[in-house]
Formats: sequence, C-alpha cells, structure tokens
Amino acid sequence: MEVVNKYVSLKHHVNGYPSESDFELATTPLQPAPGSGEVIVKNLYLSIDPYQLNRMKRYSSSHTTCPAAAQIEPGQRINANGVGRVVSSGRAELEEGDVVAGMLGWEQYTVVRPGTVLMKVDAKDLPLSCYASVLGTSGLTAFAGFYDVCKPKKGEKVFVSAASGSVGSLVGQYAKLSGCYVVGCAGSKQKVDLLKGKLGFDDAFNYKEEADLKSALRRYFPEGIDIYFDNVGAAMLEAAVANMNSFGRVAMCGAISEYTNAGERAAPDLIDIIYKRITLRGFLVLDHLHLHEQFSAATSDHLRRGRMISLEDVSVGIESVPTAFVGLFRGDNVGKKLVRVGELEG
Amino acid sequence: MEVVNKYVSLKHHVNGYPSESDFELATTPLQPAPGSGEVIVKNLYLSIDPYQLNRMKRYSSSHTTCPAAAQIEPGQRINANGVGRVVSSGRAELEEGDVVAGMLGWEQYTVVRPGTVLMKVDAKDLPLSCYASVLGTSGLTAFAGFYDVCKPKKGEKVFVSAASGSVGSLVGQYAKLSGCYVVGCAGSKQKVDLLKGKLGFDDAFNYKEEADLKSALRRYFPEGIDIYFDNVGAAMLEAAVANMNSFGRVAMCGAISEYTNAGERAAPDLIDIIYKRITLRGFLVLDHLHLHEQFSAATSDHLRRGRMISLEDVSVGIESVPTAFVGLFRGDNVGKKLVRVGELEG
Repeated sequence: MEVVNKYVSLKHHVNGYPSESDFELATTPLQPAPGSGEVIVKNLYLSIDPYQLNRMKRYSSSHTTCPAAAQIEPGQRINANGVGRVVSSGRAELEEGDVVAGMLGWEQYTVVRPGTVLMKVDAKDLPLSCYASVLGTSGLTAFAGFYDVCKPKKGEKVFVSAASGSVGSLVGQYAKLSGCYVVGCAGSKQKVDLLKGKLGFDDAFNYKEEADLKSALRRYFPEGIDIYFDNVGAAMLEAAVANMNSFGRVAMCGAISEYTNAGERAAPDLIDIIYKRITLRGFLVLDHLHLHEQFSAATSDHLRRGRMISLEDVSVGIESVPTAFVGLFRGDNVGKKLVRVGELEG
Repeated sequence: MEVVNKYVSLKHHVNGYPSESDFELATTPLQPAPGSGEVIVKNLYLSIDPYQLNRMKRYSSSHTTCPAAAQIEPGQRINANGVGRVVSSGRAELEEGDVVAGMLGWEQYTVVRPGTVLMKVDAKDLPLSCYASVLGTSGLTAFAGFYDVCKPKKGEKVFVSAASGSVGSLVGQYAKLSGCYVVGCAGSKQKVDLLKGKLGFDDAFNYKEEADLKSALRRYFPEGIDIYFDNVGAAMLEAAVANMNSFGRVAMCGAISEYTNAGERAAPDLIDIIYKRITLRGFLVLDHLHLHEQFSAATSDHLRRGRMISLEDVSVGIESVPTAFVGLFRGDNVGKKLVRVGELEG
C-alpha cells in the first residue's frame, strides 16, 4: 500500500482571529514502516476545537503547560482528536478494519506512533461521530468539568455559556440529568431554540440581544447561580460572578472570547469572590482521564436510552477543515464541529 | 455601677478612601441589666481591620453574605474583635475580672448579648494583645487560609502580598514553619526590612519601587509561584497569576487596593488560569471556625517557643480609632493594627 496523504497545516502563526488564508493543504506520500510498531489510520471524523487557536499563536503561556497544548509550527501536521479505521497495524491488539478513536490529525491518514493511546470502538453500537464528540474529549471535558470540578448537588442552579457548543451542550444535559436547574446562553435565536427545545435546558438566551449581561443573569437566575460552567470568559464571567450565590463554583473550561483578543479580559469583582467564597478553577481534561471508564459507560447508556443527544455540526472533506475551524470563532457551528474526511467503507 | 461609654460611629456611609472626618465620638450611659444574661466588658485592645470599610459603604455586595459583613449604619456602634475584662457578668461561666476575647466593639465598654461567643483567656500566659491579633481573627484567618485553602506542601514557593499586615505577616511565618520558600511584598523599605529580618521571609520587596510587577515576580520566583496569598487584588493578582506554576492556588483573603476604589479591578489572564489549572478561592474565616482549637494550640506553642512573632502596631485611646483605621488604607500600620482603649488594672 502506498497512498498520498492530504493534510492541513499553518502558513504562519496566528494572532487574533484566524482566517482561511492562515492555512494551506499539503500532500505527502505515506508508507507503512514494517516493524516500527506504527499504526496507520484512515481518518473518518476529525474534531475541530477552539483550543487549537492557542497552539497556533506565536506566543501563549499555554504552550509549555502540557504536551496537548504544545505550539504548532508552520508547515507541521496538526494533531487533533478523531475517529478512524486501521489500515495497517504494527500493534498486536489492533488489526486492519478496526475502528479507533484517539489523537489523530487534521489529515486524511495518520501514522500513529507506538505509545499513543488508540481506543477500539464498536462501530455497530453508536454512530461513529459520537467518538469524536460526545464520547470523545469534548464529552469527557464536560463530564469531568461538571462532576469533578463543579461538584453539583440536586436542585442547584447552573449557568452554561457557549451552551450550544461541543462542551456546553453536554454540560447542560448532564446538569438536567442530575436534577439541576440549567440556563444556557448562545449567540443566535436558532441556538437558543435548540437549547430549550431539543436539549432540554430550562431556559436560554441570546447574549447578543442583552445590553447588560449582569441584569440578564439576574432575570434568569432570581435565586442566584450556584455553578457557572465558563467557556467564554470576559464580560460573561464578570456578570456570572456578580450573580453567584455563596459557595458558588466556576469551572474555567475555556475563554473563547479571549482567545482571539489578548486585550479582552474578565475583571470580576473580588469583593464578590471573597465574601461569597466563590471558587474559580481552571481545568484541563487530561487531569481527569481516570474518569474515562465511568464517563464512557454512563454517557453511552444515556445515548442509547435517548436521555442525551449528540448535537453535531459536520462538514465534509479535508479541504473544509480551515473553514470549519475559523467558523468556531464566528459562532457558525451549532453543536460539536466535526469534519468527515473519509468513509468507513472503501 | 454606672459608667459613661465612649464609642466611635460613622457620620455617613463611606465611599472611596475613608477619612477621620467620616467618624465621630459619642457617649452613652451604660447600665447593667440584671437577669438579662448580658456581660459587660471593659475593652482593652480593639482590632482595626480593613474589611470594616466594606461594611461602611452605602452599597456593597458583601453586606448580605454573612452577619459579620453586615452594613454599618451611621450613628450605630461598630462591632469589632477585641480583648477585654469582664466588669459585670450575667453568665454562669464568667465572673468579674475574667479576661475574654471575642466580638466587642469600637468603644470603651461593650454590652455582650447572650449567645455571642466570649472566649476566656489566660492573662498570665501570653501578652493580652495577642488575643486581638495573632491568636484572634487575624491569626485564624492566616492559619485557615494558608493550611485549609492553600494546602501547602513542603518546598512550595509562596508569595504573600500586604506581607507586613495583620494576616500577611502570619501567613509568611506559617509558610516558613511548613518548609516553604516565602517572598512577601509591602509598601516601604522599613516593612521590607522587617519581613526579611525579624519575620524570617526568604525575600521581600517594595512594590512601590517596581514599575512592572510581572517582571518583579519573575525575578523573585524564577521557578514560579505555587501559592499566592492575596490580600490586595488588582494588578498584583494579575502579576501573580502570570507567574504561577501549574496547579497553583490563590487564597483570596482580601483586596485592599480595591476596597477604596470600585473601578480598580484585577483582570488575570484566563489562559493562564485554564492551562495552568489554577484555583482561585475566596474565603472567610467564619467558615473555618472548626480549626480554632488546632490553630490556637499550635500558634500559642509557636509564640511561647519564639518560633513566631506577633507584629503589632498599637495606638492608645478610643479617640485614636478613626486615625488607626484610616491609616490602614495609607499603609501606615506595620503589622496588626490595634488600639489599646483600656488597662487591665483599674
């Protein structure tokens, strides 16, 4: 077997909003290296995530914090989570045709080096795309962030920002399943309708239509917020802190409104934080991998019984990766953004 | 017994920096009410604390968070921690001449109502002023904030702001006793010398002489900060977060630079907080009262063995309370600010 692999790479480091012209498509021949222990995976679904923007910057304090956040150099392959089919295996436990999920890349085929975790998935159980979304890193991020970081109690009031996004849409569903009251915010009427209709949020609002976020949250949470799952940072974090109850918890999962603009900052009132004994905690999913089994069993079960929905927004073809990525920062995606780069058969 | 009680009260709510003219002295006759269960205490040392400014404001979100933070109305007596001598007791467990510590007031005598905790202290063991400082609320705040909120490990790098203040000076000493590396900042050469000399900090600096706090902290913590005990908020919090290590913890104890100026805010970089998995936690001592016995035993022992020092700044006479309080926001005090309003004998 010898194939040509098409991959997406950066033309240059990105600062501020990304645009399609920051990326280029390149090709490289791909050859198995027998005896190397490598696995060649034909990619099916790729995960498109906002955090990748921080990796693309010329400078970010995030680059040195963990391998998953390492800087991406221009010209390099870009690793990313995904689902694929094994086309050539140097591992005893995997064979051609197996479907696997793990760290693949923004490319048609990924050569997976020994030591990189590949999880075998049952292609007949749940839709394959789930393993790059609700059952993948986004799902575990939502699960760990909500249960491990926020430690919710039944009846608590939960606010989720970017609530129709990959993580937010799942946090809201976990919160409902845990007996919490959940309100989400998003950036369009369509998204708000989805949150209230399809995803079962108790309420939702379009933050773009609110002149004063603090008053908006006071309206949606007359009894105050106990848990804020923050995906956006900036003014929304300030407004949430102002509306929190004593012993409130903020899971700092993402700050998408700050990723594109280093000058955009949240300046929450410290008097609120001190007197209301609020905890703000930054977290990364990689510190919560021990929850994977519990997460996976519970979430698969919820999906099978129809108690959870995987809201996905799928583009097709490796060429669509740049637009899919850039769209995250324009709020184009409704649900988890995925790109289908290959078909299971063929 | 009938005495005239001199007390300090507010003329009006205070916004921004307080000044002596915001206060007035008043007098009221004081009479025991037999059978009421009241205890009349002649006050000896009164605790002068920055948080009282928040109580004096016309509006602060802190007012409704706990009884100790309740708003102070003009003309009212101002309750405050202190040490005093019982002159008339309506409680079986207390008698005339006993020395007690607890919630007294900015006045010469306090009528302590049934249900208010009064702790009997041994006037022959340690200096009485200790019970309004290192063994009082400031001490427990430092102890609980450092051990319970920051959860220090031996060898960790600890930064303390307002380090020569009532709480900071103790946090630094606890940190040294726990095998940590400790750097403090303060606002004068005299204070910096005290931190390095008398209090045993590993290093200290005058923040007023640093044009760039972020670089200053990089210089003092080339290996990064593990724990930041924040007493000031604003730019110092931003600089500390920028210099923190992964899994760093910030105990949000006070924000004195924000108390006088609602426009002064900290806007720490959320990318640091998320990727370095930093936890910021606001706390109030009242949630940690269960540590009192452990705190009191350990700290008394440290004091007796000369392993800790109570750094106190004592003014004399009830008339000096307004100046003592106002001086906190000018950085006048070196160590815990106390006012001696009475003598043990007589």
